[in-house]
Amino acid sequence: MEPIKPYKKDAGYSYTLGAFPTIELLSCRPSLVKEVLVHSSFTDRETVDALCGKAGIPVTVSDKTIARLSDKENCFVVGVFEKYTESLKGDVPHIVLVNPGNMGNLGTILRTAAAMGIYDIAIISPGVDAFHPKAVRASMGALFRLRHRYYDSFESYRRDFPAHGIFCFMLDEAHSLALSDVEKPELFSLVFGNEASGLPAEFASYGQSVIIPQTEAVDSLNLTIAVGIGSYVFMKEKHS
Amino acid sequence: MEPIKPYKKDAGYSYTLGAFPTIELLSCRPSLVKEVLVHSSFTDRETVDALCGKAGIPVTVSDKTIARLSDKENCFVVGVFEKYTESLKGDVPHIVLVNPGNMGNLGTILRTAAAMGIYDIAIISPGVDAFHPKAVRASMGALFRLRHRYYDSFESYRRDFPAHGIFCFMLDEAHSLALSDVEKPELFSLVFGNEASGLPAEFASYGQSVIIPQTEAVDSLNLTIAVGIGSYVFMKEKHS
Repeated sequence: MEPIKPYKKDAGYSYTLGAFPTIELLSCRPSLVKEVLVHSSFTDRETVDALCGKAGIPVTVSDKTIARLSDKENCFVVGVFEKYTESLKGDVPHIVLVNPGNMGNLGTILRTAAAMGIYDIAIISPGVDAFHPKAVRASMGALFRLRHRYYDSFESYRRDFPAHGIFCFMLDEAHSLALSDVEKPELFSLVFGNEASGLPAEFASYGQSVIIPQTEAVDSLNLTIAVGIGSYVFMKEKHS
Repeated sequence: MEPIKPYKKDAGYSYTLGAFPTIELLSCRPSLVKEVLVHSSFTDRETVDALCGKAGIPVTVSDKTIARLSDKENCFVVGVFEKYTESLKGDVPHIVLVNPGNMGNLGTILRTAAAMGIYDIAIISPGVDAFHPKAVRASMGALFRLRHRYYDSFESYRRDFPAHGIFCFMLDEAHSLALSDVEKPELFSLVFGNEASGLPAEFASYGQSVIIPQTEAVDSLNLTIAVGIGSYVFMKEKHS
């Protein structure tokens, strides 16, 4: 096998850092795993060994490689996996992230989406790399339980899914309905903008604008919190 | 004035790092500000100078001191403020954080609480320091718009506020009601546990146990997301 290098965006493979996301990877996407690295001091190998044995995945002890790939000291397991592209499902709700800028936030959003039962995530480019080990770790491996896909523009996403009701979470109140007042269809896309700038104004014409009512004490909710509240309320109140 | 040292928990003063939290500090708590430091390359001084002028607060240009206090390169303004202790209001909803372990999360929770209109936060010790510059920065200065108070135990908090309905957000479903099914009174305390361990089991007997329903794809929601969803739903559905 070729030597394992620190992650690069244009590489064909990436890494899970830590036992939990590696076990998620092995459970959900075993056919994509090329190798699992374990630290010599990692004693709780039973689950990892069993999953790798079942799928015929080599397990290698290599403290040096793990140290090179991880910037945290408490990383004892690394999974090496092939990156993949897949389509979103058409008959279920989606989350659409427009130009997400922070890998930790992206990971947290993936985890939150999976917890709320939304398993299909569109990312409008430019946006941070969901396969970056930092995003994978922040998702705690939830990435592997979801489908995600990058689109060059919102329009190209929209062409693929013309039947979804579009709900754009805006930062200002013009033409927006409060989250609780919005009629929730069975099939919807919840659209969220960048952490710093929110959604561009033209998104108000792409569907129903939504705001999460808040006091004036704070300029805007954290993106991850907005996705959490929006997903919870839509999944709770949608028609079905 | 005594020389300004890096933050210590037992010091009587702390810092806001950055223009936004410093302006929040100056707007909400001017009488506590001892000094404001600005970087020589900071040009947008109008608001800071006006607020400091009105309150008679000295503004000093000191690139060296700012570099010593901040670990980020893009910090151009630092506020030096006296730490304070204050009481929570008795006739409004509270959030109670039991042993919070992460300063960034604590700051995000403070900001979210203020956005949702919950301005009174109890922290049960041991818990991270809300006055630490990292927590203040993560709150974007929302700390200064809230009241917060540390308690040695949940019991001592409860003695101060016997009339609040207690709602404990648990990680397991035993004896718990789903968030949407809970009867929300006008006066309530939303109680959340530590990021890693959640609330200890005995909290089930302190009030109504609540869970935020989620799929099995993820082991638990991020604490900040849980606080966001819980606060949104309670403030939306409470009797008044």
